[in-house]
Amino acid sequence: MKVMRLGLLGCGTVGGGVIQLLHDNASYLAETVGAPLEVARVLVRDTAKERVPQLDRALVTTDPEVVLGDASIDLFVEVMGGVDPARQYVERALDSRRGVVTANKMLLALHGPALLDRAVHNGVDLAFEGSVGGGIPVIRVLRDALASDWVIRLEGIVNGTCNFVLTRMRDDGMSFDAAVKEAQAKGYAEADPGLDVDGHDAAHKLVVLAMLAFGARVDAAAVPTEGIRAIQPIDHRFAARFGYTIKHLAIGRDQGDAIELRVHPALVARDTPLANINGVLNAVALEGRALGPCMLSGRGAGDMPTAVSVVADVLDVARAKLSGIPGLSTRGIQMQARPVKPLGDVRSRYYLHFLVHDRPGVLARIAGALGEAGVSIEQMVQEGGAGSSGVPVDIVLLTHHAVERDLGKALDAIVRSGVAAAAPRLIRLLD
Amino acid sequence: MKVMRLGLLGCGTVGGGVIQLLHDNASYLAETVGAPLEVARVLVRDTAKERVPQLDRALVTTDPEVVLGDASIDLFVEVMGGVDPARQYVERALDSRRGVVTANKMLLALHGPALLDRAVHNGVDLAFEGSVGGGIPVIRVLRDALASDWVIRLEGIVNGTCNFVLTRMRDDGMSFDAAVKEAQAKGYAEADPGLDVDGHDAAHKLVVLAMLAFGARVDAAAVPTEGIRAIQPIDHRFAARFGYTIKHLAIGRDQGDAIELRVHPALVARDTPLANINGVLNAVALEGRALGPCMLSGRGAGDMPTAVSVVADVLDVARAKLSGIPGLSTRGIQMQARPVKPLGDVRSRYYLHFLVHDRPGVLARIAGALGEAGVSIEQMVQEGGAGSSGVPVDIVLLTHHAVERDLGKALDAIVRSGVAAAAPRLIRLLD
Repeated sequence: MKVMRLGLLGCGTVGGGVIQLLHDNASYLAETVGAPLEVARVLVRDTAKERVPQLDRALVTTDPEVVLGDASIDLFVEVMGGVDPARQYVERALDSRRGVVTANKMLLALHGPALLDRAVHNGVDLAFEGSVGGGIPVIRVLRDALASDWVIRLEGIVNGTCNFVLTRMRDDGMSFDAAVKEAQAKGYAEADPGLDVDGHDAAHKLVVLAMLAFGARVDAAAVPTEGIRAIQPIDHRFAARFGYTIKHLAIGRDQGDAIELRVHPALVARDTPLANINGVLNAVALEGRALGPCMLSGRGAGDMPTAVSVVADVLDVARAKLSGIPGLSTRGIQMQARPVKPLGDVRSRYYLHFLVHDRPGVLARIAGALGEAGVSIEQMVQEGGAGSSGVPVDIVLLTHHAVERDLGKALDAIVRSGVAAAAPRLIRLLD
Repeated sequence: MKVMRLGLLGCGTVGGGVIQLLHDNASYLAETVGAPLEVARVLVRDTAKERVPQLDRALVTTDPEVVLGDASIDLFVEVMGGVDPARQYVERALDSRRGVVTANKMLLALHGPALLDRAVHNGVDLAFEGSVGGGIPVIRVLRDALASDWVIRLEGIVNGTCNFVLTRMRDDGMSFDAAVKEAQAKGYAEADPGLDVDGHDAAHKLVVLAMLAFGARVDAAAVPTEGIRAIQPIDHRFAARFGYTIKHLAIGRDQGDAIELRVHPALVARDTPLANINGVLNAVALEGRALGPCMLSGRGAGDMPTAVSVVADVLDVARAKLSGIPGLSTRGIQMQARPVKPLGDVRSRYYLHFLVHDRPGVLARIAGALGEAGVSIEQMVQEGGAGSSGVPVDIVLLTHHAVERDLGKALDAIVRSGVAAAAPRLIRLLD
């Protein structure tokens, strides 16, 4: 009986999880694939490091040649992360006509279309369920379940660190810094949390989702991206008062002529499923033309959830190879370069926070500037202040729909008028 | 180039949707499958009935022999519903070594294991994504994405009629009868709503889910099943007061020795994703040993969502056939007969409603009976009544965890004591 031989590129926590799952479920997986799956070679940086007990140490090497040059290997599993040298390894594996399973969102976001082209050219598979949303099977749902439908919009809570920090700030009144420290202590955030809390990780994932959902080949640097550093405790309080909660979202809309992709915090109506995805949970909500709304949620990161996704991909790629028609995972992914709508053209409702000098006429000045720019106000709350205390007071308001460029003009005018004691803060509302 | 020829058994609203999707996405689907998909024959009951314009009327027949006897057909799509004659048609298709895609939950719940055995025996596929949760890809997630994991629990809102009725009662203070009437008027409920509101439809779907999630071959009649007829407006009010919302759930737990399957209304904590699945939306929340928690939600019924799922299955079965190794959709579904835990053995927390005669000592009598049965009270609210008005008053309480048999003893004792002016009402809490 044919055995499917796997080459692991990397063996950190996700790789260790993959080895565990392959080991613990070996006979079941062999039956569902039609051949036993065997870990043949494992590339690591440090052979001395402790590994999961299910790993045969004799398979471990630090020499990429020993793994990539082994012609008996049927498919590669890239779980090393980072762009270099992962990219070169994946390219070489595809060029040698072996399928690749990867959980590397940065690699996919920056070089996904080129790698998919390469896989198609070589007639092999490139599967990447683990790259977005850890254990949430969103890639396979977009690719398989929605094969006959068109996705018109999606919103994702795709960064567990941001969601954890925002949840702790909202529910426990924690400061941003304290919440980030706790996330780090719990292993949810990196020592340098910037990739997470500044939104870049979410932007990478959005680019990967947009490839499948919209067939869009997008430059990750072109996605308007904001993190959560600016959000203040008062914003959580006012959001709740208006019936919303603040979530860090990756948003995509296919508007025919243009594609709207953006990453930023947003007010989400509190009685919607997305608003109730808390802590480190992730979710992707999407809407298909025929399917209607659909949401998937679960652990967006973590070794074992991601390993479950990687193994599911391994099964697909192994089956495709055994059937003699590899390339199924890439077939049907049709991508074309599509421009991303500039943020200034986006229409949205807005939450605005102003810290203003407590003087008569301030409210009128703000309302006037918004009105002149064509932005109408839905509700406005002033907290504290008697109209002449001299102490800066908070004014918070929600607008009706407006084009962001117009709103920017109004905010500029308000700042120039000198009524603001600090830069105004804008948070978009999710429609 | 090989063409995949499809035989449609039934052509109602779902079948019409399938024809539309196949037509509108023909070139894309041909590319992703590797062969064009052609509707070859369509079995209907009434040839005079209006059909979707994409259907070539020349293909329509009322003679099952013309469809099932056509050896040129590669796979069948059963969208007629009901058990007979759908079962005989599916059996014949499988025996003639053609794969079948079905959206028929009742057929699957009553004869699923036997039909799957038949598919395996004949080496062909039997795919049934459309049978549970309409457009929610829960079957493929259980089968593919979770292939290397074990599901330990699941909870589903799987009946759109029940969810719609409960949502209208809660949010708009509607009576059960008025909400059912509205559901019927909107096409969400059948003229005879019993299959939905008495829980049987949800029980069928739970049996199908349990096949995949727990590998359990279960007699649908053995699943403890309650509908939503008994829920009163006051229950919604008290549930909200305690921080819960009432949902009609299909619940499954793999407890190793036993499998717990039950269908009934339940109090769900209001700040959880499941509690915010409203109206006709469906959801399945599950927990994998490695994956952790995961939830899928979307339109649980409707022509187009279900058609999207059916077409996704058609693509799988067609690809498997083309690859020369059909049978993938059934491979790995290992089932064994497993006993369902009796409801009396289930441990849960409970919401209890008593309508009692307003007399001194009533509260003590209730608390005493519960205490004697080992059921401890978490909180208790009495509404109205001065202790001697003679007018019946409402007492509502939440218990700590208790075994249902013990609770039953306490309720019997309370009824026997004569304090109750009506039968006590019990609603389980979701853990």
